[in-house]
Amino acid sequence: MPVQIHRDLLAAIRDGRLPGGVRLPSSRSAAEGLGVSRSTVNTAYDLLRAEGVLTIRPGTAPEVIAPQVLNARERPATPPALSHRGRNLALNPRASSYAADSGIMHPGAPAESLFPADEWAQALRRAARHRHGELANYDTAFGHPALRRILAERLATDRGIRADPEQILITTGTQASLALTAQVMTDAGETVAMEDPGFMGARAAFLGAGLEIAPVPVDEHGLKPDHVPGGARLIYVTPSNQYPLGYRLSLPRRLALLDRAQAQNALVIEDDYDSEFLWRGREIAALAAHGESGGVVYLGTAAKVLMPALRIGWMVVPAALVGPMRAAHRNLGLMANLHAQLALAEMMRSGRYRAHLRRIARAYEARGNALAASLGQIEGIEVHPPDGGVQLTVRFPDGRDETPALSALAEAGFRPARLSAYCLAEPLNGLIVGFADATQERIERFVEVLGKAVG
Amino acid sequence: MPVQIHRDLLAAIRDGRLPGGVRLPSSRSAAEGLGVSRSTVNTAYDLLRAEGVLTIRPGTAPEVIAPQVLNARERPATPPALSHRGRNLALNPRASSYAADSGIMHPGAPAESLFPADEWAQALRRAARHRHGELANYDTAFGHPALRRILAERLATDRGIRADPEQILITTGTQASLALTAQVMTDAGETVAMEDPGFMGARAAFLGAGLEIAPVPVDEHGLKPDHVPGGARLIYVTPSNQYPLGYRLSLPRRLALLDRAQAQNALVIEDDYDSEFLWRGREIAALAAHGESGGVVYLGTAAKVLMPALRIGWMVVPAALVGPMRAAHRNLGLMANLHAQLALAEMMRSGRYRAHLRRIARAYEARGNALAASLGQIEGIEVHPPDGGVQLTVRFPDGRDETPALSALAEAGFRPARLSAYCLAEPLNGLIVGFADATQERIERFVEVLGKAVG
Repeated sequence: MPVQIHRDLLAAIRDGRLPGGVRLPSSRSAAEGLGVSRSTVNTAYDLLRAEGVLTIRPGTAPEVIAPQVLNARERPATPPALSHRGRNLALNPRASSYAADSGIMHPGAPAESLFPADEWAQALRRAARHRHGELANYDTAFGHPALRRILAERLATDRGIRADPEQILITTGTQASLALTAQVMTDAGETVAMEDPGFMGARAAFLGAGLEIAPVPVDEHGLKPDHVPGGARLIYVTPSNQYPLGYRLSLPRRLALLDRAQAQNALVIEDDYDSEFLWRGREIAALAAHGESGGVVYLGTAAKVLMPALRIGWMVVPAALVGPMRAAHRNLGLMANLHAQLALAEMMRSGRYRAHLRRIARAYEARGNALAASLGQIEGIEVHPPDGGVQLTVRFPDGRDETPALSALAEAGFRPARLSAYCLAEPLNGLIVGFADATQERIERFVEVLGKAVG
Repeated sequence: MPVQIHRDLLAAIRDGRLPGGVRLPSSRSAAEGLGVSRSTVNTAYDLLRAEGVLTIRPGTAPEVIAPQVLNARERPATPPALSHRGRNLALNPRASSYAADSGIMHPGAPAESLFPADEWAQALRRAARHRHGELANYDTAFGHPALRRILAERLATDRGIRADPEQILITTGTQASLALTAQVMTDAGETVAMEDPGFMGARAAFLGAGLEIAPVPVDEHGLKPDHVPGGARLIYVTPSNQYPLGYRLSLPRRLALLDRAQAQNALVIEDDYDSEFLWRGREIAALAAHGESGGVVYLGTAAKVLMPALRIGWMVVPAALVGPMRAAHRNLGLMANLHAQLALAEMMRSGRYRAHLRRIARAYEARGNALAASLGQIEGIEVHPPDGGVQLTVRFPDGRDETPALSALAEAGFRPARLSAYCLAEPLNGLIVGFADATQERIERFVEVLGKAVG
């Protein structure tokens, strides 16, 4: 409160409402007028006296001095305009994706009801009561050693990646990993190649970094490597489960992509966002598993298995990039919360993470298959049954505008995304539909509303 | 395991160790040779068959096909070089600050022994068991509404700032807030003015953004506004407690700084990093409290009061910048952990945060005063008794090199920082010494070692 009185008196003196020589009310009457304690007013007066703005003599009311420095009239300032870089960073390609601000069956989100809240709460509690020493401060900003160790083990077993824990950086999630890689490896005006259609977060990160985006077409074998332009410095790909079409990058394409990247000295960003719960077909080695993988930065996340708002992701970077990536990671402030990192490490180490994964993979498989089957009843749309993940894509092969369907679904409480918003050069129309939170009842209602809208 | 066998066989086929026509061992003998289960080998063989790399006929050993696409010899790839931007982002001005990688009485760090671990553990546990709905996903990336609300209230009361909760963004800490502001408001090659000596994290953020840094001298009244160059687009200042010299920015300088910024259309970054525990003198209104403060971005953090590794900071941005700052914040991935945000909000709402603040302020005041008093016994150094915070600065007025003192202290387990590393144009020599973890015994030992080194 004294701080506010101090601020308000100063503003009045600056703008001339209280000119030099004016006597302020006594602290007693000011306190009554303002409805605050007398000591609050006295504190504010004392501050102003200490700053040379009032004289206070015993027995008289405080007198305003209004020194020269205060004479400039206080104006409401307007902030400077955004820089060119700032305008890129503030682009929001997501804006056209949705017809509603909230709703169910939203893509990219796991089911909160499956979050292992009790286990996580226990693990967090233990982590918070632990003494962390220097890990509580700023050192090891690039990630908790226990989490980096268990991730290195899991990535070797599950994804074939030979990486030292030193090559792993923990970030605040895939968005941070993308922005970091784009900024460290490119300059504004350079080119990044990415799948078309492709992940909106990657597009936002690349636009934010001032990059030209070269769309690379995708078919049922994934991205077509021979469409990557020769000048691309980065190539972004989702090999396990192409976002949003759901295809897996075939082996010949994987090898061709790696060769092409190497030939043109480009870095591949492998976004392995939901390889952990593919239920159809088997996992194959990650791109980052091939050779010494010096040309690949691998990105993973706990967002889909646990919860996006935990803000934990990881990167495996080539050994030669570890030093610069760590420094840039720290300078950009991408450090993840300590307790959440330790809780995740503990959950992975104990086997409870894998058990949770099996549980949710079964649930999501059932939900995804049920949604795909129900959608199959609607004529005039195409559905690729999902191999994993938490969303599937509905195509409108006649190229019809998605807006009527999106609006009708929004009205019924659903929030699918507009497929065309994810497209760059190749126009595709349809919807991206989340099924993590899909119950049979919700699916029936969704299919009913969509059927009417496209009928 | 199947993923690793798949990867290794593929590498051998690609580099010609297993040419087309070669027959692989049966799964039984391969399993024996590798010490894995037969089903593991079969899974890998099946993957390679599905990918067209092996033929498997009943009763015969699998035969390598080595299709055309595999013929390119696998080479270890080297990653591309860093971009110009990446080289800036990877600069580490901190590198010269220390003579040791770890140690006690390190500046900028609170005492972990004072962290309210039980309270925090309870609050985290409640937050983790709570259902968060859409806050668990990606929406409201710029901060939990409950935390933004209580911060708006506290900032009004304690710092005189009139801000709507909409103007508050929660970030992963001051480093993130600095990098975000620098990137959104400037282009590479532009100028930022900052205090000399000044905060290393700010320097790292500004260098990372490719900015020219204009040093502004500091005296006992804080930064000298008339030394801010006319072309500066940003002005970075620590008004409550100048980092690292510990002075408070005087009222005439505050007003002159705001006027100057407005006149040249520059944005002021007010880093209020430890206004919360000043114990000498009273808090005065923040810079962001004056006028409509359209020209100030205000930064706060929980790092010093609680723990840096929680990764929670906050920004108050002018209303006109809210939209672009939110978009850039999301695109850069600067979102803080949900449970930590809610735990902090709850601790602030219940009054336990303020009680904790009083407790640690008393402890740090005692430690800071004890350290300053003991250092006063050493001749030939100058100590400015701290008004608050968690570190103080020792000056070597004879300009002697700090290295002998730093090395002797490092050998004794201490990790103060080198004052000259924080200087830009004006050379100052001395040490920045943390006292949050200073016991009487540690202080005596520190003074003994330093006394010998400078004697």
